[in-house]
Amino acid sequence: MKLSQFYIKTRRSMAAQESINSYLLEKAGFISQVAAGVYAYLPLATRSLRKIEQIIREEMNSIGASEVVFSTLQPKSIWEASGRWDDKNFREIVYIDKESDMTLGPTHEEPMVIATRQFIRSYRDLPVNLYQFQTKFRKELRAKSGLLRGREFRMKDLYSFHPDEKAHDEFYEQCAEAYTKVFGRLGLTSYRVKATGGVFSNEYSDEYQVICPTGEDEILVDHKSRTGFNKEVEDQLKESEKKKLERVRAIEVGNIFHLGTKYTDAFDVKYADPSGKLRSIYMGCYGIGISRLLGTLAELYNDGNGLKLPKQVAPFEVVVIDLTSTKTGLKLHNELEELGVEVLFDDRDEPAGTKLVDADLVGYPIRLVYSTKTAQDGKIEIKERANGKVTLVNLEDTVKSVQKLLG
Amino acid sequence: MKLSQFYIKTRRSMAAQESINSYLLEKAGFISQVAAGVYAYLPLATRSLRKIEQIIREEMNSIGASEVVFSTLQPKSIWEASGRWDDKNFREIVYIDKESDMTLGPTHEEPMVIATRQFIRSYRDLPVNLYQFQTKFRKELRAKSGLLRGREFRMKDLYSFHPDEKAHDEFYEQCAEAYTKVFGRLGLTSYRVKATGGVFSNEYSDEYQVICPTGEDEILVDHKSRTGFNKEVEDQLKESEKKKLERVRAIEVGNIFHLGTKYTDAFDVKYADPSGKLRSIYMGCYGIGISRLLGTLAELYNDGNGLKLPKQVAPFEVVVIDLTSTKTGLKLHNELEELGVEVLFDDRDEPAGTKLVDADLVGYPIRLVYSTKTAQDGKIEIKERANGKVTLVNLEDTVKSVQKLLG
Repeated sequence: MKLSQFYIKTRRSMAAQESINSYLLEKAGFISQVAAGVYAYLPLATRSLRKIEQIIREEMNSIGASEVVFSTLQPKSIWEASGRWDDKNFREIVYIDKESDMTLGPTHEEPMVIATRQFIRSYRDLPVNLYQFQTKFRKELRAKSGLLRGREFRMKDLYSFHPDEKAHDEFYEQCAEAYTKVFGRLGLTSYRVKATGGVFSNEYSDEYQVICPTGEDEILVDHKSRTGFNKEVEDQLKESEKKKLERVRAIEVGNIFHLGTKYTDAFDVKYADPSGKLRSIYMGCYGIGISRLLGTLAELYNDGNGLKLPKQVAPFEVVVIDLTSTKTGLKLHNELEELGVEVLFDDRDEPAGTKLVDADLVGYPIRLVYSTKTAQDGKIEIKERANGKVTLVNLEDTVKSVQKLLG
Repeated sequence: MKLSQFYIKTRRSMAAQESINSYLLEKAGFISQVAAGVYAYLPLATRSLRKIEQIIREEMNSIGASEVVFSTLQPKSIWEASGRWDDKNFREIVYIDKESDMTLGPTHEEPMVIATRQFIRSYRDLPVNLYQFQTKFRKELRAKSGLLRGREFRMKDLYSFHPDEKAHDEFYEQCAEAYTKVFGRLGLTSYRVKATGGVFSNEYSDEYQVICPTGEDEILVDHKSRTGFNKEVEDQLKESEKKKLERVRAIEVGNIFHLGTKYTDAFDVKYADPSGKLRSIYMGCYGIGISRLLGTLAELYNDGNGLKLPKQVAPFEVVVIDLTSTKTGLKLHNELEELGVEVLFDDRDEPAGTKLVDADLVGYPIRLVYSTKTAQDGKIEIKERANGKVTLVNLEDTVKSVQKLLG
């Protein structure tokens, strides 16, 4: 892709912000703030978010879940029917158009139960595992952490329906494993952390937390097993247990809940077992914050010069900067593109300095610079953004070297 | 994909509906109604919508536009700033949470101007062409036509910013060509039709219309040039011109508008030309109704037995039904899947009749049926959904025959 065909506009000067992720992502031209906790995703963020979603999609498909897209508009009446409207904490976060009594779905348990109940009659109709990439809307008062806490945010949510607790628990563990895989593929070390069920469930929930000094959660972790406890359940630990754990700050990137029969019973959705007896359906819900993940990655992967997103999430893998008046850079770009490398050619009529600074700011994992100086020796400069390592390689070995670095 | 790993639930009996597309799409398990004009997209629709979006994405990228995702939440103040809030027709369609004064974007001209103005200083920053796949929200009183007229609907919208009218007009024509390509690739014959600018523009606009007896628009068309006029501008035609045109009903699937400098001037976004003089920016907007396209295709491609969506839009290309107790069907499915064919194996423990009826209802373009009867002669039955043609082929030629039919 030529940069002139792709819209990237970085910002030279920008006022400091409370949040590292929104500061760096805005400066590098990934996002643009619309209001507190509301962002427009510009082309760079759109590419990264799509890559994050594709990794999650593959893992959700692999555990037999199917992708859907439910609606954002939800009649207020469905939250009344489940009893959730009586919960002041819940009601306060819901956007509502009072004229039509339509709300903006802050979550989708009720809509999922309503949509699937028409199809669930017997045990043969179970299990049902549906997931979606959805924009969620919640009136968030603490919307000061960039993409970490939005009033409008992208989320993957999955809802499972099983005939009994055992079948539910098995799927729950399958999903837990898939989550660990997802975060691993994204370049994150995740901890499975016990927490309360919040407004969703009376049972414990499992959170997926990533250690980060700027995270707003405080957790106690065991590094070896990659498990831990949210501070909110600390009281239930023995002192001897606590001693073995390390107290750290972290960002919650996912969570999974046992919902039991709370929502299915509220809507009286039952299934007939093989003997014809009507039974309750066990439900679970499983969330991953997509835009929050991009925020988390930005929060963790950066330095004084800009972003250093891992290559599986970075919008492009390679940038080519040609400071000579030859066609060498363009030719290299074309070769790499044909091999399926996600490469950008900086064809802007801008000074060398701007191109180099921008490359660090956006954080392309690999930067190729061809200059009159390197050309003299028939070389090209390869810089790895992650570790700053700079190598000069023979021009004819460029493609091979890039492929090796991309693994 | 095995059907047991993918969630498809068709409906046997369903009350008649005003709209053919929502009736068939609901019966075949593509969608589920949430409220008037609001639908949940189940796994089949989600696949089809993604395929439609990918075709559009390729064509938008090919004219040098970049993909973004803007926010749904928009402060009311931006519509006041542009003057649109004074328009009663506009204001009446906007969902608003009065507590926060946040609206649900019914369109994105204002947000696009606001987000891009920070990057536009000089003529070298132009053109800017950004598009997105967005859910739009409009209070639609006539939400009776299924996916054709929703209160919440998927849309591709593109916004262009050019330094002068000539550059704008050139891009407008490029986009017009891309639209004709998109609709053609989707299996639709589109007409470019002159219409008024509606609430968006005082100039003429171009609509893309598809002839359909159940469409709510009335247009006058010339079949040879695939152009025409919306009835609303009929008065401006000479009688001699009208005589050459045919009056038909149609569905609007896309539209493109010259916005001139209306919105950029409203926000005082100017650029410095090469001499340093500040000049106005010319803007255009270009929409395609994604969910409406799925509705249009369903409205046009069906028969008494169900849907007949074209293969480039159908959720799967092939369904395999094995009525024997052999592994033949599964083996064929695996072979086809490995070759990249989008194939579904109906592994449900259901009677043959249910499987065959469902296959027609969902409308897989190619249906393979392996039965004890065809097995006796070493054959398999291939049925093309589009024309109902049934062929018996030698089992060993199945893959080759399927590939030939898929072209």
